[in-house]
Amino acid sequence: MKSKKTISGFSKLSKIDKIKWIVKHFFTEPDVVMHELKSYWLADDEQQRVLDGFSENTISNYYMPYGVAPNFVINGQTYCVPMVIEESSVVAAASAAAKFWMDKGGFKAEVIDTQKVGQVHFSWNGDFQKLKSVFEELENALREETTHITANMQKRGGGILNIELIDYTAAEEDYYQLKATFETCDSMGANFINSVLEQFGRTLTSFVATHSVFNDSERDLTVIMAILSNYTPDCLVRVWVECPIEKLGNFPEGMDAKTFAEKFCKAVQIAQIDPYRATTHNKGIFNGIDSLVLATANDFRAIEACGHTYAARDGQYRSLSNCSVENGRFKFWMDLPLAVGTVGGLTKLHPIAKRSLELLGNPSAKELMGIIAVVGLAQNFSALRSLITTGIQKGHMKMHLLNILNHLNATDAQVEKVVTHFEDKLVSFTAVREYLATISTSEKMTIS
Amino acid sequence: MKSKKTISGFSKLSKIDKIKWIVKHFFTEPDVVMHELKSYWLADDEQQRVLDGFSENTISNYYMPYGVAPNFVINGQTYCVPMVIEESSVVAAASAAAKFWMDKGGFKAEVIDTQKVGQVHFSWNGDFQKLKSVFEELENALREETTHITANMQKRGGGILNIELIDYTAAEEDYYQLKATFETCDSMGANFINSVLEQFGRTLTSFVATHSVFNDSERDLTVIMAILSNYTPDCLVRVWVECPIEKLGNFPEGMDAKTFAEKFCKAVQIAQIDPYRATTHNKGIFNGIDSLVLATANDFRAIEACGHTYAARDGQYRSLSNCSVENGRFKFWMDLPLAVGTVGGLTKLHPIAKRSLELLGNPSAKELMGIIAVVGLAQNFSALRSLITTGIQKGHMKMHLLNILNHLNATDAQVEKVVTHFEDKLVSFTAVREYLATISTSEKMTIS
Repeated sequence: MKSKKTISGFSKLSKIDKIKWIVKHFFTEPDVVMHELKSYWLADDEQQRVLDGFSENTISNYYMPYGVAPNFVINGQTYCVPMVIEESSVVAAASAAAKFWMDKGGFKAEVIDTQKVGQVHFSWNGDFQKLKSVFEELENALREETTHITANMQKRGGGILNIELIDYTAAEEDYYQLKATFETCDSMGANFINSVLEQFGRTLTSFVATHSVFNDSERDLTVIMAILSNYTPDCLVRVWVECPIEKLGNFPEGMDAKTFAEKFCKAVQIAQIDPYRATTHNKGIFNGIDSLVLATANDFRAIEACGHTYAARDGQYRSLSNCSVENGRFKFWMDLPLAVGTVGGLTKLHPIAKRSLELLGNPSAKELMGIIAVVGLAQNFSALRSLITTGIQKGHMKMHLLNILNHLNATDAQVEKVVTHFEDKLVSFTAVREYLATISTSEKMTIS
Repeated sequence: MKSKKTISGFSKLSKIDKIKWIVKHFFTEPDVVMHELKSYWLADDEQQRVLDGFSENTISNYYMPYGVAPNFVINGQTYCVPMVIEESSVVAAASAAAKFWMDKGGFKAEVIDTQKVGQVHFSWNGDFQKLKSVFEELENALREETTHITANMQKRGGGILNIELIDYTAAEEDYYQLKATFETCDSMGANFINSVLEQFGRTLTSFVATHSVFNDSERDLTVIMAILSNYTPDCLVRVWVECPIEKLGNFPEGMDAKTFAEKFCKAVQIAQIDPYRATTHNKGIFNGIDSLVLATANDFRAIEACGHTYAARDGQYRSLSNCSVENGRFKFWMDLPLAVGTVGGLTKLHPIAKRSLELLGNPSAKELMGIIAVVGLAQNFSALRSLITTGIQKGHMKMHLLNILNHLNATDAQVEKVVTHFEDKLVSFTAVREYLATISTSEKMTIS
């Protein structure tokens, strides 16, 4: 017997019929929820149709706050950075760091390389030396049989860079790879790379099936899968800030510049040593990074996966950022792999993402790598500055409390009372609602 | 000389004045952009005020498609899972995997533990043996002086679990940690943990400054920072699917169940061996995970950072999922640390997140851990199934093409022609627009 909550052919239902089925089976107030889900649709039908098309079984829109952090000076250029984030203090932290460094030379960014990576994973029990001996011929075939895919990318200055054959049989029986690198210019390049790799798989299979160097027992090669790698350690940008220590100025609770610089470096060093701290430290960096990645409709899962793998590249998960205090200078920097695009994908299709790129002056992919990494470094700077001076809770709790009061439609007078009451108490939704109720009751009693 | 593009006091401007400044300095069509940004505001002012309050410098809303994947059977319960994702094929893949496993026993989930972690990092050059000798006393003080924060959490069954003192001086001079574990019930617990830890820092400082066991040269202890760790390897859920191999059925291109099972396992094994593949493999898992994390207003940066650190825990970055084909059974599973909440944070404040939780039957945090991890495993199953059978490009490119045609308002007749034309060509926005223009021209010529 099937549960009433399962369904066949759901994806083929109209949007409204999808909603009807959902509210009927999963909500206690079907009509209210139906109305609510529809209320989040865009007024412009065409635009809504475009958004719906990005994904499947789309029934409404999910809203995230779209904010901006002004005053980012990067390589002498000034940017106002769009940020999509649901967590409080992130935009404030980015803005504060931008302003802090604005008159200290600003941020610097330098793209080190832009290589993307793709792999054809295959099983084969033939003689590897034979395959190696005809690799030049194979490589020519791989390049020739993908010219219909690579022609346009080559016109733009990109294409296939290197193709390599890797023997992995020491780790797994019969397992080999074709590993290729690509230049994809201003696009992230996923579709391009995957199309090339799937053709590589077909070319490789027929090459081995027909080449005279192999005997008949070697002709069957199985392509396990052909797909880009999101790990792109050579699609790398370096960002940094630096200034004479005394220029850092003074900090809360009477902390002078030298003490700040040393404590700051110690905090970064701790994130180099301890994976428990490194995870949170890098999480803060990605608070900034993902905000801008989202705002430009790039893929934050790809960026996260790549960055964290990079953080673990030497065998221990470590801080992505580094700090030094030497010869009277404070320096704070980060190398980060970032595969992003400013053309292709959804960048031009999502109406707000398009505006985000315009706000940034329609940057190239390289320029965007720099801006994204800078926002991550800025975030990290502000987070550490808070942590080593006042702590983060004071600001966080105040913001959280105001969110709750906003939601509960508290009056200005109530807000004032509640904020005072919670100065030394833990803020939670229930506690605030309950305290607000006691105020409201006493107010009513006063009136009556 | 300051750039005209920098500004002081931006955060204090009204929302409309913020937008005015931005459009004036960064856009070529200020009025159009102003109108557009405002058009994305919610009709309900109160609701918009709540959303604006989540972040800072908020000027508009960023829209993500809100979709659902029905037919998820987990521990015998049926769920319709809300997913917020801008990438095509993710919701389709989740739905396909849900349906595939629905009549094969469904998914299983088991929460192994729910411990959260926090640390007080400190510098001290006293005698560590002395500190150890009075640790019981210190621990009592730490617990006592945080009772005003922990009282409510204890009523709900949570609180501080263990407190440990760690000597890190072998790695960094004078560096120690208080490392504590917490049970935070249905909340993610960040605010609770951070409030406790900041008090720990104050208690620790005065304990060392006043306790008779220390001499005066040992009284100065510097708290570097006090903050939760997003790395929570003991906040862990296990999810899995399994069935007799023959029940897997047949697959595209004539692949039988046994071949499928073996090729599938090989693909998982490759992601265990090779970090380049592991990154992409796990990225696919997080496509599913983040969709639901976003839909419930949990913090996807925290979830990502934790999961990837966990993937690198043995010194090499590896696949989070595992597969076995033994004794005629196919089994596919994953252990994943997931610190999430169903109360607190934005879960009740974001209007759509609240509905997402209702759609899931208002689960506990433990139940939500299971659902989230299952969606990740489902995603991984579908991605690997595509990769080892038909490849992923066919489906991807078709969807991408339809997105572009949607955006360009192509007629049904045009869509048909363009889809046929691009069957063997690489889809890009420019290429599609250009081809569409040639069709439109020839159509006009035919008409005239």
